[in-house]
Amino acid sequence: MNIDMIRAAAERLRGHARRTPLLSSPFLDEIAGRRVWIKAECLQHTGSFKFRGAWSAVSALPDDVRARGVLAFSSGNHAQGVALAARAHGVPATIIMPQDAPRVKIDNTRQLGAEVILYDRAAGEDRDEIGAVLEAERGLTLVKPYDDPQVIAGQGTTGLEIAEQAAEVGIAQADVIVCCGGGGLSSGIALALNAEAPGLRVRTAEPEDFDDVARSLHSGRVERNTRLSGSLCDAIVTPQPGVLTFPILRRLAGPGFAVPEADALRAVALAFTRLKVVAEPGGAVALAAALFQPDTLAGDDVIVTISGGNIDPDVFQRALSTLETAPYSRGSAA
Amino acid sequence: MNIDMIRAAAERLRGHARRTPLLSSPFLDEIAGRRVWIKAECLQHTGSFKFRGAWSAVSALPDDVRARGVLAFSSGNHAQGVALAARAHGVPATIIMPQDAPRVKIDNTRQLGAEVILYDRAAGEDRDEIGAVLEAERGLTLVKPYDDPQVIAGQGTTGLEIAEQAAEVGIAQADVIVCCGGGGLSSGIALALNAEAPGLRVRTAEPEDFDDVARSLHSGRVERNTRLSGSLCDAIVTPQPGVLTFPILRRLAGPGFAVPEADALRAVALAFTRLKVVAEPGGAVALAAALFQPDTLAGDDVIVTISGGNIDPDVFQRALSTLETAPYSRGSAA
Repeated sequence: MNIDMIRAAAERLRGHARRTPLLSSPFLDEIAGRRVWIKAECLQHTGSFKFRGAWSAVSALPDDVRARGVLAFSSGNHAQGVALAARAHGVPATIIMPQDAPRVKIDNTRQLGAEVILYDRAAGEDRDEIGAVLEAERGLTLVKPYDDPQVIAGQGTTGLEIAEQAAEVGIAQADVIVCCGGGGLSSGIALALNAEAPGLRVRTAEPEDFDDVARSLHSGRVERNTRLSGSLCDAIVTPQPGVLTFPILRRLAGPGFAVPEADALRAVALAFTRLKVVAEPGGAVALAAALFQPDTLAGDDVIVTISGGNIDPDVFQRALSTLETAPYSRGSAA
Repeated sequence: MNIDMIRAAAERLRGHARRTPLLSSPFLDEIAGRRVWIKAECLQHTGSFKFRGAWSAVSALPDDVRARGVLAFSSGNHAQGVALAARAHGVPATIIMPQDAPRVKIDNTRQLGAEVILYDRAAGEDRDEIGAVLEAERGLTLVKPYDDPQVIAGQGTTGLEIAEQAAEVGIAQADVIVCCGGGGLSSGIALALNAEAPGLRVRTAEPEDFDDVARSLHSGRVERNTRLSGSLCDAIVTPQPGVLTFPILRRLAGPGFAVPEADALRAVALAFTRLKVVAEPGGAVALAAALFQPDTLAGDDVIVTISGGNIDPDVFQRALSTLETAPYSRGSAA
């Protein structure tokens, strides 16, 4: 993994991925006590940064390999990213999803042209086994969600844009808080910033109780989450830091944040009122950290990602209901 | 009014207004039966295009005049645009608002540094009289919401960006549907496109029963609305087309659209699910026209504005509830 791979990915993504805007609001600045700059990757195609990594990986394949098709395991954002990237390249995508995934995500993935194969978690069906058979029989290539160099390179293009956009508004020194699951986005951005804007330092944000990366960064070795479900921030919950991503983060990232679910929901609500963008809870943890955990931040500026906006309407309504209690104040809602 | 004024406004806005993205979604394309491109001005500073015109007008004033301060009448988006533009120029803003305006809008305008003067509509207080006294006593300059050449020039910068962005994605010929109240945005965009992208034609979109501009374009003379309240699209309801704006639209715009309120709400919901942006009902009428009134459209592409995103949470929740009935189908909800 190096910066040249990220630059090459940026070339392949040019004209296909969106250069998402860097947003801000004086109202958020006031809450945070400093200027807050928001890289709005929820405005990326398919509603999350995952499209970048998917496009990068699919476009990097040799023509004859790509033509046989790609495969992914996902119940969410990665599925849609791979489906759209494959369709735009004119090659088949097969996505293996749990049978109990939300109907709307299954429908979306199918509408993006992918073949969706459902498996029954409860009945003990093994998705890896299903995938291995498909790889062998159909000659499909697996696109992993984060532990793949071309996926990390694609996510890293977000970092190249942050470096450019920070320079445009005159920021040379700041923490860049990145929503973190397996670490593809945060490690990619960390590599890009290290090369292009060394005054900008990545820090991860994760849901409280699912902060495997923060704890791993703290201890210096891979720590696992004790549970894997029960978070509203499901899109960014992974068992442990990635094999490729963690060494990059250990080398380049600052201390991580663990964000209470209530703060993530309040950040979703503030993104609605102040930025006019739709954030999913897992995509709002970095904004929540900047707004409600200022103690370990320094300097006049902080940059955060909103990494995705694929949220169910009922969860969104729950987030909006936090506006009635304490829309502007700092600290966790009780 | 001419294109040079719009180009000059673009120079003054550079680095201050956002170049908002041109968004799209394959799901919206499918509903519309053609490619739909969305100019997301809800992502502009203060959540609407109004900031452009306000900045243009404030920045165009002679220094000594500007230093005395600016004045606006508004209960909504124009108020916030003028307040922020004045604050950024370091000059005082006075905004005259009705006492019964939503509390959050009054609070926002104050938080942006403006002095808010409330008047009592019910008690027959005359806002024009209050304004005239302030202009005389304090030497303030009134910034009108649309019938002002520098305001139209500022809104027209949206059109310069649309021309550039359409060229980037290869569109030479298309209708550009613009949310229309007094006509500042639509006439400004029409002037810009006429000069920069003559294959792009502006068409106005208004709420049903408040379609004074569409009727005026049809009859060729100024038609008035019979009522002025009772629309969820309140932000774009005006009594009649503007004195400066209507002649421009009569010369350059195609037939207007009148959009049922239910369709505007469905467009708000689709902007949430498919674009991850927050639209207010009045800001979503152009998208609604493109999706649900395709009969008078031709060609492979249509461009629309989402002009603002300042919506109350309860209205937003009402819009989201339309998803449960018929999120993807065409035609008006019954």
